[in-house]
This record gives sequence, C-alpha cells and structure tokens, in this order.
Amino acid sequence: MARVVVDVMLKPEILDPQGQAVQRALPRLGFDGISDVRQGKRFELEVDGPVDEAVLARIHELAESFLANTVIEDFTVKVEEVAEAVK
Amino acid sequence: MARVVVDVMLKPEILDPQGQAVQRALPRLGFDGISDVRQGKRFELEVDGPVDEAVLARIHELAESFLANTVIEDFTVKVEEVAEAVK
Repeated sequence: MARVVVDVMLKPEILDPQGQAVQRALPRLGFDGISDVRQGKRFELEVDGPVDEAVLARIHELAESFLANTVIEDFTVKVEEVAEAVK
Repeated sequence: MARVVVDVMLKPEILDPQGQAVQRALPRLGFDGISDVRQGKRFELEVDGPVDEAVLARIHELAESFLANTVIEDFTVKVEEVAEAVK
C-alpha cells in the first residue's frame, strides 16, 4: 500500500483571506519575519497495490476533476512513503 | 526568501468526515482502489531571509501554538525550495 498526496492551493493571483488572516495575526502573536502565508488543502490517499504510471494518471485526473477547482486552484500529486513518521 | 510548509492533519485516531466523504464518493465517480482518504490543511509561509535552525524552531512553535490544534491534529514542518514549480 502506498500513500499519494494531493496538495491543492489557491492560484497565486487569487486572494487568500484565510492565509492573510494568519499572516496578519503573526506579529501580534510575536512571530516576525514571515512576509506571506497561503492556506490550502492536503489530501492523503491510501492506494491499494503499487503506484505505477497508470494509477498516478488516474489520481491526477481525480484531483483535476474532483479535489481541485482548477479555475482558482493549482494542485500537485506526490507519492509518499507510507512508513514515513508523521510528527 | 524561502518557503516553509506546515502540513496539519487530523491524528489517525480522530474521525475525518471530510476525508470519508471524499473516499465514499470515489467509486461512484469511477475511481477504485483507494482505501482511505484523509483531508488536512497546508500552510505555505514565505520567510524573509535564510531559514536556519532558530527560524525553524520558531515556526515549529508557531505551528504548535497557532496553526494546529495538537489535541486532535499532528503537524509537520518542511523547508521547500521557492523556485519549485507549482503545477
């Protein structure tokens, strides 16, 4: 079993009020030196069986048609080790 | 300038209704072979200046106190190349 990660972020030219809210709050909270924050979504898909080119192509299609709104969002598809420690 | 990414995911033992909704919809949409979906948040922070140990420690603190609810969520902090192409 393998894990495929789909990250969905607003396109750079689209305003991101959630990210802006975080960024503006940081100095108040004592965190300086961060000039921009963007907030997006992360999907972790557990895939049965091996992840080959065909499976990745399907997941790409799935992300494009279903997980992301490609009018306003960009997405990336990455394969991740399942054994990876999540802290 | 460098980009630091904070991924925030619900802990494995916490129910994830958003992820479940996606996972259940997939077969209906013609995508089989995905046994689990978890949905979380991704924060991209643009950091002024170099990202050294001290900056990462600060961002870790920020993520722990502000971006994640560590009662129910895990988070990871990663440095990313700014030049990276976002597709």
